[in-house]
Formats: sequence, structure tokens, C-alpha cells
Amino acid sequence: MREYIDREVLEDLAVGATVLGTGGGGDPYLGKLMARQSIETYGPVRLIQVEELPEEGLVLPVAMMGAPTVLVEKVPNGAELKRVVYAVETRLGRRAVALMSVEAGGINSTIPIVAAAELGLPLLDADGMGRAFPEIPQCSMSVRGISATPMALADEKGNLELLETVDNTWTERLSRTATVAMGGSSIIALYPMSVEEAATSVIPKTMSQAVNIGETIRTARRRGMDALDALLGLTSGQLLFRGKVVDVMRRTVEGFARGTAKIEGVGDDLGSSLELEFQNEHLVALRDGEPVASVPDLITVLDADTHAPVTTEGISYGQRVEVIGMPCPSIWREPEALEVVGPGYFGYPFEYSPLGEVRT
Amino acid sequence: MREYIDREVLEDLAVGATVLGTGGGGDPYLGKLMARQSIETYGPVRLIQVEELPEEGLVLPVAMMGAPTVLVEKVPNGAELKRVVYAVETRLGRRAVALMSVEAGGINSTIPIVAAAELGLPLLDADGMGRAFPEIPQCSMSVRGISATPMALADEKGNLELLETVDNTWTERLSRTATVAMGGSSIIALYPMSVEEAATSVIPKTMSQAVNIGETIRTARRRGMDALDALLGLTSGQLLFRGKVVDVMRRTVEGFARGTAKIEGVGDDLGSSLELEFQNEHLVALRDGEPVASVPDLITVLDADTHAPVTTEGISYGQRVEVIGMPCPSIWREPEALEVVGPGYFGYPFEYSPLGEVRT
Repeated sequence: MREYIDREVLEDLAVGATVLGTGGGGDPYLGKLMARQSIETYGPVRLIQVEELPEEGLVLPVAMMGAPTVLVEKVPNGAELKRVVYAVETRLGRRAVALMSVEAGGINSTIPIVAAAELGLPLLDADGMGRAFPEIPQCSMSVRGISATPMALADEKGNLELLETVDNTWTERLSRTATVAMGGSSIIALYPMSVEEAATSVIPKTMSQAVNIGETIRTARRRGMDALDALLGLTSGQLLFRGKVVDVMRRTVEGFARGTAKIEGVGDDLGSSLELEFQNEHLVALRDGEPVASVPDLITVLDADTHAPVTTEGISYGQRVEVIGMPCPSIWREPEALEVVGPGYFGYPFEYSPLGEVRT
Repeated sequence: MREYIDREVLEDLAVGATVLGTGGGGDPYLGKLMARQSIETYGPVRLIQVEELPEEGLVLPVAMMGAPTVLVEKVPNGAELKRVVYAVETRLGRRAVALMSVEAGGINSTIPIVAAAELGLPLLDADGMGRAFPEIPQCSMSVRGISATPMALADEKGNLELLETVDNTWTERLSRTATVAMGGSSIIALYPMSVEEAATSVIPKTMSQAVNIGETIRTARRRGMDALDALLGLTSGQLLFRGKVVDVMRRTVEGFARGTAKIEGVGDDLGSSLELEFQNEHLVALRDGEPVASVPDLITVLDADTHAPVTTEGISYGQRVEVIGMPCPSIWREPEALEVVGPGYFGYPFEYSPLGEVRT
């Protein structure tokens, strides 16, 4: 268990979070640079477990909202993070005792580190998804009945919005619209929780798991192991496909990066093709037209040489890749949860078939 | 000078505000019913002059935002009005001592009466336009440098947004987007002001003027006068055209009711036609293709028989109408003001030519 996020841990965390981010969450490099600078200025960020928090505290997740394709061009700054935290704290008349990531994923794993460093707050070793998802209600806190509001949104120009909605579907609708109007991305604070609520709703240990994944990829070769095998062992994952990217389509629609990537098989997969469909994150993997993995399980693309994770905006023609599948946190396999994160929610006509069970 | 708005005064006010509303501001009948019910429940609303207000007070305009065509189907309730007032009061840590209309116009003249009755607050005898305009920065307070935020928006479902923006153009953009996402209309509180700010920025006596206009139309015949002559005398207006509506096009675009109405001349205007173009409110009147009146001056359509004002959503094929023009409040003729309310702002290629000056 890590107790602090310093510069070294940050490197592994950024890589591991991108593996868990299933292609989404934005550019990990940009987020890492921001977090590194904050740590250099303010010192390491304490990583805290939920049972270490004071009973009376407020846990506040912070994130960036919008299409990752836009995030690359609109670098956020610490002022916006402070503003959204203060806005929610002021509305509730309570101070945050810890910040948190809503999702594991490139920039959304590191943005909360920036905020925690600048505000001098610890970061909860948890997230709300155990992976990344495109929409606000696709959060373990939402499944456990916690409201995403009061939620604050800020842009880099200085605009601020505070939302209070009747349910988390309305939060998604109004905040997505606002984010698009703000230019395609915004900095947000949402799902303010009591420590008791956090204890029963968040996905624990996600940050530690991300660090472990990053470390495994970095050190496997030195330890005489195959990095892919080590990664699959750590995540209970499986290799879905090896091949070469032959086609990528990508467009930004209603604040989301949507698209597909087509991969032609090599080695054992020669003669087959795999199509990945994504909405910020990878949603389904279709092998020769048949689903072999889907949300809520994790589908991640790795560079075939370095085993480094590749985000949906990083996939490019000719790239040699490995596609892996990893089982999702158990909360996502509950029937009510599957309604908001299963393939049906995203418009696919097939049932969710959990990775790890026998597939035909 | 009226000191109270009771049931009788309300009737005249609703008619007069619709004349000043230049076709926009929503259904006057609906707004009047709401205000009448509030007055019956809570008693008459005190109409107050700015110099009567305590120095330390907060003046808070409230309104409905969105396309009038939508408002007819989404009846607001007092709960939303209270919510937006409380949200702005809470954000500023100050209580309102008077509410206000942002614009003269059907429903937006009566909505503040509903709020004032329910909250037990007086209504300032003023507005921010002296007419109606479609956008938030088109307000005398904005011309005088007052921020429209903190601004609150609420919908009938129970959603609430609080906006703080860098300028009033951003307020318009973000609140319009939110209003569309809320279903096409919202209840808003905005332009919170100190009494001192109100004194130097609002258009004074608009509510009294509306009552006088309504009373004039209602009583002229009884007093042996022509109602149209009496109205033109009271408003320094002029008759632009008499005719029959032969074509109306109307669509709801981005939260606005946009369209045109074409009128064929009768009497002195036989052989000519007048085209009115509107965006919630009438923007220009083109006689045989040439502008004869434009924003910021007021263009209003009256029923030829009753001289009752007709809103843009009330204009219908075959209707016999009178079109009048009335000079706008002097603030709108200042060069900086014309930049946000003149014909150029709305995309017309001609210069503003003030009503009352010689036109060729």
C-alpha cells in the first residue's frame, strides 16, 4: 500500500491508470506533467484509505469533463480546481477532508492529485468506477443512491456553474450541455459524500492498483518476466487479440470522442480482425463481428513492443497492438448497475457476457 | 403613480406590458392568470420607486427565459421563483428588498408580480429594457456595467443552476444552453444590484407606463377618444401600417421563436406590404422591402378592431392589424448600447434610423 504519491509513484500511477482507463480519460502525459509540477511545488500527496478519514469529513471527487480530444488543447490550471472545490464546500457549508478520482483514466487520475497538492488535502485511495466510463451516472456512488450534486463546473475563462438536480441523469444532461457550451471541456467537483457514504459506495484501492500496474509493466522485463503476462496476472485479465491497426475513425459528438478502430490479426490471430468501438472509452470488442468483450469489463489497447497503454486518441494507423480484457469491479455486474453500464445502455443488441466466464 | 398592483391594475398592466413587449415576452393571458391568483392569495403587491428603497438593499430581477412558444405549454409555479431568489440571496449573503422585471413583455411583466406576492416583497416600478429584447446583455444594467451573475435558473422538475460568468455574453451563452437543456424554458433571477446601482441603471417607471397604456386602450372609447390616437399620444408613437396578415412563418430555434409575418396594406397602405421579422420580439419592419422601423425602437402589432396588442405567437393568417412604432428609451440610442441592440447586432445590413427623426 502506498502512503504518498511522489514523483516516482506518479510515473507508475499514470501508466496504470491509463490501462484501467480503457482508452479514455484523456492524455496521460499532460495530466502527469501537471501533477508532477504540483508535487514539486507543494510536496507529495498523501494517499489515504477511507477508514483513516475523520467521521465528520466530506469526501469530494474532482475531475475533468468533456471529450479527451479537446482536453489536449485546453490545458486546465489549478485555479479552476480550487474554484470548484470551494464552490461545493461553500454550498454545503462543510470542508473536504479528502479529494478523490471519479474514474481511473489518463487525466482524471492525475487531476485530483493536482487539486490535492494545491489544496493540501489527502487523496482517497479509491475511485467511482474502477475504470473509466463516459457518463456521470455510471459511477458506483450513483448505483448506491448518492446524488452527484451539488456539482460545480468551471472553465479556464473564469466561468462557474453550480448544479443541483433531481437525479444523476439530469446532472449528466445539464453538465454535459454546459461543458459543450464552455468550449468542450470543464473542471468539475461532484458527488460530495460523507465518509460513511464513501465507505459503502466507492471502489477501494484503485489508485494503489494503478500504481501496481504501472510498476509491473515498468519492471517486468528487469525481473525476467513478460510484461504482458505479469499484467494479465495482476488484473486477472486475458489477451483478446494481437494485430495491426488498419483503420481508425474518430469524431467529437456532443462532447464525446466517438469512433471505431479496426485491427487485423497477426500470429495466432492471423486471418481474423477485431473492431473496437469507443465513446471516450472502449465499449465493445468485436472479433470478426462477434462480441468477445464489452462494457462494463475493461478493454485496453497496449503497444505491442512496450506494452504501454494506448488511449483512443492515441491509436493510429499501422500501430502494432495487443488488446486485453480485464474483469470489472463486482458492483458493475449487479443487475441495476448493468442497466447503466452494460452493452444495452450503449445501444448494443447483445447481453453482457462477463469476462472470465466461458464464452462460445 | 400607482402604489399597488391589485387585480384591476393588473388587467391594464398586462395589456400595456404586451404593447411595450413588441410581440415578445410570452402569452400575457397566462402570466396574468398566475399573477391574479398570487394577488388573491397574498394580497396586492406594492409598487415602489427606487428612491423609496433602503440604501443597503438588494434589488433582484426575476423572469422566465426561453421561447414564448414553449412557455405556453410549461406553466411555471411559485416554487421555482422562490428557489431562484433564495439561490442568489444565499450566494450573496444578502436579502432582496425589491424584485424587478428585466423586461416589459407579456409574461415577464407578470412573473415578478407572482414572485413579489409570494415572497412578500415590493416590486420596483422599473425594468431593464423599457421594452422586451431576446438576449440577456440587451439590458440597461449591462450597458451600465452591471454583471448579470450570480444568476440562478430553475426548471419545473426541480433542477437548479447557479451561474457566475466572466461577462454577460457568457451569461447569455451558458444560460441559454441550460434553458434549452431544461426543456426550452426556465425561471431565472439575475442582475442582482445594490439600490445605488439600480438607481443609475434601470429604466424607471416602466410598470406605471404599462398600466397607463392598458388603461388608455381600455377607456379611450368611453372617453370619446380613438384608442389608437390616445396610445400614440401617450407613447410618442406613430402608425406604421394598417393591413391584413397574409403569411406567418414561425420556428423555435436554439431556444428562440424566430419568424416573419407579412401584412398586405389596406386603406392608405393599399398596394404596399409590410414584413415584420422577429426573434421572440419584432426586430424590423420592412415596407415594400425598405426598413421603416427597427430595434431598438418598439414595433408592436395591434388588433385593428380592439387595438389590443398581438404577440408574435398570436399573429395569425387573415388577422386585420395596425402596426405601430414607438421610440425606445434614450439609453438604447447611446452608441455602445446600439452595438448590442441595433439592427447590425441582429445581422441587418442597415444603420439604425431613430423613429421620430425624418425618414426618407
